[in-house]
Amino acid sequence: MGMAPVAHVLFNKFMKFNPKNPKWLNRDRFVLSNGHGCMLQYALLHLFGYDLTIDDLKAFRTVDSKTPGHPEAHDTPGIEVTTGPLGQGISNAVGLAMAQAHTAAVFNKPGFELVDNYTYSFLGDGCLMEGVSGEASSLAGHLQLGNLIAIYDDNHISIDGDTNCAFTEDVVKRYEAFGWEVLVVDDGDNDLDSIEAAIKKAKESKDKPTLIKLRTTIGFGSLQQGTHGVHGSPLKADDIKQLKEKFGFNPEQSFAVPQEVYDLYGKHSSEGAAAEEEWNQLFAKYAEKYPEEHADLKRRLSGELPEGWEKSLPVYTPADPAVASRKLSETVLSKVQAAIPELFGGSADLTGSNLTRWKQAVDFQPKATGLGDYSGRYVRYGVREHGMGAIMNGLAAYGTILPYGGTFLNFVSYSAGSVRLSALSQVRVLWIATHDSIGLGEDGPTHQPIETLAHFRALPNCMVWRPADGNETSAAYYVALTSKHTPSIMAFSRQNLPQLEGSTIERASKGGYVLHEVEGADITLVSTGSEVCICVDAAKYLQEKHGLKARIVSMPCFEVFDAQPKEYKLSVFPDGIPSLSVEVMSTMGWERYTHEQFGLNRFGASGAYKDVYKKFEFTPEGISKRAVATVDFWKDVPNIRSPINRAFQQLI
Amino acid sequence: MGMAPVAHVLFNKFMKFNPKNPKWLNRDRFVLSNGHGCMLQYALLHLFGYDLTIDDLKAFRTVDSKTPGHPEAHDTPGIEVTTGPLGQGISNAVGLAMAQAHTAAVFNKPGFELVDNYTYSFLGDGCLMEGVSGEASSLAGHLQLGNLIAIYDDNHISIDGDTNCAFTEDVVKRYEAFGWEVLVVDDGDNDLDSIEAAIKKAKESKDKPTLIKLRTTIGFGSLQQGTHGVHGSPLKADDIKQLKEKFGFNPEQSFAVPQEVYDLYGKHSSEGAAAEEEWNQLFAKYAEKYPEEHADLKRRLSGELPEGWEKSLPVYTPADPAVASRKLSETVLSKVQAAIPELFGGSADLTGSNLTRWKQAVDFQPKATGLGDYSGRYVRYGVREHGMGAIMNGLAAYGTILPYGGTFLNFVSYSAGSVRLSALSQVRVLWIATHDSIGLGEDGPTHQPIETLAHFRALPNCMVWRPADGNETSAAYYVALTSKHTPSIMAFSRQNLPQLEGSTIERASKGGYVLHEVEGADITLVSTGSEVCICVDAAKYLQEKHGLKARIVSMPCFEVFDAQPKEYKLSVFPDGIPSLSVEVMSTMGWERYTHEQFGLNRFGASGAYKDVYKKFEFTPEGISKRAVATVDFWKDVPNIRSPINRAFQQLI
Repeated sequence: MGMAPVAHVLFNKFMKFNPKNPKWLNRDRFVLSNGHGCMLQYALLHLFGYDLTIDDLKAFRTVDSKTPGHPEAHDTPGIEVTTGPLGQGISNAVGLAMAQAHTAAVFNKPGFELVDNYTYSFLGDGCLMEGVSGEASSLAGHLQLGNLIAIYDDNHISIDGDTNCAFTEDVVKRYEAFGWEVLVVDDGDNDLDSIEAAIKKAKESKDKPTLIKLRTTIGFGSLQQGTHGVHGSPLKADDIKQLKEKFGFNPEQSFAVPQEVYDLYGKHSSEGAAAEEEWNQLFAKYAEKYPEEHADLKRRLSGELPEGWEKSLPVYTPADPAVASRKLSETVLSKVQAAIPELFGGSADLTGSNLTRWKQAVDFQPKATGLGDYSGRYVRYGVREHGMGAIMNGLAAYGTILPYGGTFLNFVSYSAGSVRLSALSQVRVLWIATHDSIGLGEDGPTHQPIETLAHFRALPNCMVWRPADGNETSAAYYVALTSKHTPSIMAFSRQNLPQLEGSTIERASKGGYVLHEVEGADITLVSTGSEVCICVDAAKYLQEKHGLKARIVSMPCFEVFDAQPKEYKLSVFPDGIPSLSVEVMSTMGWERYTHEQFGLNRFGASGAYKDVYKKFEFTPEGISKRAVATVDFWKDVPNIRSPINRAFQQLI
Repeated sequence: MGMAPVAHVLFNKFMKFNPKNPKWLNRDRFVLSNGHGCMLQYALLHLFGYDLTIDDLKAFRTVDSKTPGHPEAHDTPGIEVTTGPLGQGISNAVGLAMAQAHTAAVFNKPGFELVDNYTYSFLGDGCLMEGVSGEASSLAGHLQLGNLIAIYDDNHISIDGDTNCAFTEDVVKRYEAFGWEVLVVDDGDNDLDSIEAAIKKAKESKDKPTLIKLRTTIGFGSLQQGTHGVHGSPLKADDIKQLKEKFGFNPEQSFAVPQEVYDLYGKHSSEGAAAEEEWNQLFAKYAEKYPEEHADLKRRLSGELPEGWEKSLPVYTPADPAVASRKLSETVLSKVQAAIPELFGGSADLTGSNLTRWKQAVDFQPKATGLGDYSGRYVRYGVREHGMGAIMNGLAAYGTILPYGGTFLNFVSYSAGSVRLSALSQVRVLWIATHDSIGLGEDGPTHQPIETLAHFRALPNCMVWRPADGNETSAAYYVALTSKHTPSIMAFSRQNLPQLEGSTIERASKGGYVLHEVEGADITLVSTGSEVCICVDAAKYLQEKHGLKARIVSMPCFEVFDAQPKEYKLSVFPDGIPSLSVEVMSTMGWERYTHEQFGLNRFGASGAYKDVYKKFEFTPEGISKRAVATVDFWKDVPNIRSPINRAFQQLI
């Protein structure tokens, strides 16, 4: 209720949108970063004529409604990004603004301002307290995103009461320090003129994002206005009654919208439709003059990759040299970037380690810095993993960009909140997560992931890849890039890995496959990434020293494997053969596939990578020792059942 | 090398410490937030006479050395907190400073300034870019922590090159906005006098933390000084040679320290010993005058809880009413807080939801705010989960405090980076994680955890509890509070849970136990938290409708159960009986214990909690359906082996 006045002004006087086509490219974007206030947004969408009825509003916060307790992009027409977890929305808005700047730089031509939309975001104290918003806002200031306008609901109330109890910093000064233009409106409850003037001024700020600090009263009009009593609890009946009377509504009616309100707001709907129509005509002319760009933009908006792009994926044979998979990832990026112009990424200040930048890449930077321009496709995110994750969600939501971001696998966890929202909101975002195990060596336990793969494997709608060689790296990119509604985390090694006999892009694209089959196998060894080649050596060792025959399965991606038909899965993990998994991190989750697990359910160690592997016995000998124990333990069991052979597999 | 001059000044002129007793309570704390520069700290520790030899320095970044690639508190004497992951150290320092302020307020008496130490922290651009440091710094300013002095290594270089590429904000202004005193030293390479003057001035700032911005040259003295070439790579031989010559060392010698350097630094060692001796005498006098406070402080420093504290834990019978486990947690807190005065906690702006504040609690606030004082034990963290996690690590490291923090379970993930460091650095930190499943209802999928338990169960040295009733809640607190070297995450429900027949504190303290045994069981149902009581109903339903007998196992904590003897574990999950787990989130990890799993490997839904449970069939009927399928599927298998019956269980 406190933000209703500014919402009224913004949506009626400034926002450009067509309720009948919520996906029109050049619409202004609106992000409700304080997502718990979503009833305001749902009401606006309804009033402006989006496909959201009064009944939808009545179904607020009920199962399978279009109006969940926090806005979800894939549930409700007109919601740009999924918000609620604080700090995310404003950071998504930075991504949306970057996407606009880049798209404009690439596609606008003289006389064809195809994209010139603004991104508006409402945010509250909670969003400002979260570190992720600070990361994204600092970068937004650096990037001089004049197309970004954030409106801060300064109501002095959070759940714990007055913000004086925990949040007394000078927000205006902080945002000025970030390089933002900051405007203040003292009476956000009543002074609509000042609100309008502030937004107008903000739009004129071309090389700085703007924060408008709006002093408001939470629950404005309620008997409890200005207290945290109205933050999370519904108003009482008598309060609602007096409130309706105060604002001139019939106090006896619920969910009743006077026709004059519909008329006032409905006008905008036809204006929006006309604006899009005008734009469509411009776009048609653009098609004539710039057919290639037109086709490219249309294709991007469809989410489909250019035909034949996959031919640029590198293919390897065992004769090719051993290479670190982070380097293999660099090779893929360098090859496919030309075919996929919407690939747009960077690193959280680890470019030289993540190998995320192809040689001729131009940095995405304001021209004034002399370091690049907005047509550049490489982002210097700074040491801001969480901000990067949230920004990528915004970039993906814009519709013309396929974002990727690099950091060490261990530090993807800093961005757990954003990765979760990538998965929930079904956006295609790629994480290039290098230094993926104790194999990173000297940096030690603070940097060596143990729980990270289990964490993200447990996250729904998120693919976790850990390729063992070049072909598997190509497979990971292939599946990640063609999965339009799923984020991917690709884990790559720091150390060199040989090109394996038996790996192909096609086979690896099934998530798991038999790398090495053998008649009358005594055991199945299953592994991922840098441990697959050690398993290959262990199999030889087992044959030579113990006369045991080992099959080898490579499992670069659980999620993709789980989606295969049961017969295929049983052919990879057949009944009758005991199995042992080998991965230098938490064993959690491997019990789904194997009888026994060899992993690292403790923290790692700092040292040369070979010494660290040796310390924890991830060697052919160490693996063989456990394989022998496995074979012994299971030899008297008559009908060994494969763990994946189950009554039901509850994967969704 | 760029920070060597300020380190020299700080350690020689200001720092109060006794190398022979790195644990002396009133020592000044030093935190190297930019932990990758730890060779500087190791060298200092060696020169000042800590138990760190030249051979230890030579063993830098090798397996099992005392000098790992990033500083680890439990590996190296004199290291206060484990750093390296950027942004954590400075946030730990805020916790250390809060702990000092609180300890002083509680224990200092007229004439007995027992604790008056300062906390110093070095930090770099990377730390400043990370959101977690912003969260903690904003709170530090609010809390007016005059005992905190941060020294910012402003070297303009990060891994990606010049900070101009991503980090152009005005740091001075931002920290002023946070309410800090900010001082600037222009020539941190040479101007030792200005450095000294700045630290002196910072110590005089009594109601504001201080940031000293020090302009330095990275790799000062090297031929590559001032470039990112010296950030992560060792210097070349000829560079090292000229560097040694430049600073007056013998270029032919390595790891050689001139005696005069040892003498200069060694002097401080005896001074430090004398300072502690003086303090010990003061403390002895304190013992006479304030015997209770003396005994309390000594006990706290030992890490042991007061004798008999556990008698305050509430005990329940099935006749007691159904209560939400977050409310049960509140009852425990309210009861034990009087017995355990070092309990010191708060919430990330969800006090009324997490129920983390006992009635008579006083807020930890600067007196000037009128909202509390430093003797208060309740912290208003604001919406800053990551900052809270990092601050708790600092609080725990100080030695006199047992910290806890509340948020929704889903948002513990925002603090994943800090929780990981709690586990790695073996500190006792308690997370009160309420609203622990889809059972939170209306807030919907953005707030409903799915992957969270699996994530933290996969983290080494971290206990994850999900109690099913009052006795299990008491058990969770009992084990968490008495585990001196392990953090705990306790997941509590929003919805009411009945007090179960068969639960006791003692049984639940084993992590998993048979809640309900039955002769000739057809199936074992295993569950946690709010689903245990539904399994109890499902067992009745199975008996009535299908004539099937179900045993019920409650598993409030995997980690504690895993540590039990194998015979006990097999008595809980015996061979010969098929088993089914039931938990309304990711099934990942359950395969370790059960043949079949019923969970939620997808996102939840917004709606009334009963409707949401019904939608996903977490009802007696839904569970029974899967139990029947399980019994059918396994009925022809002759010798069903329990999944926990293995060749080896690789749990560390």
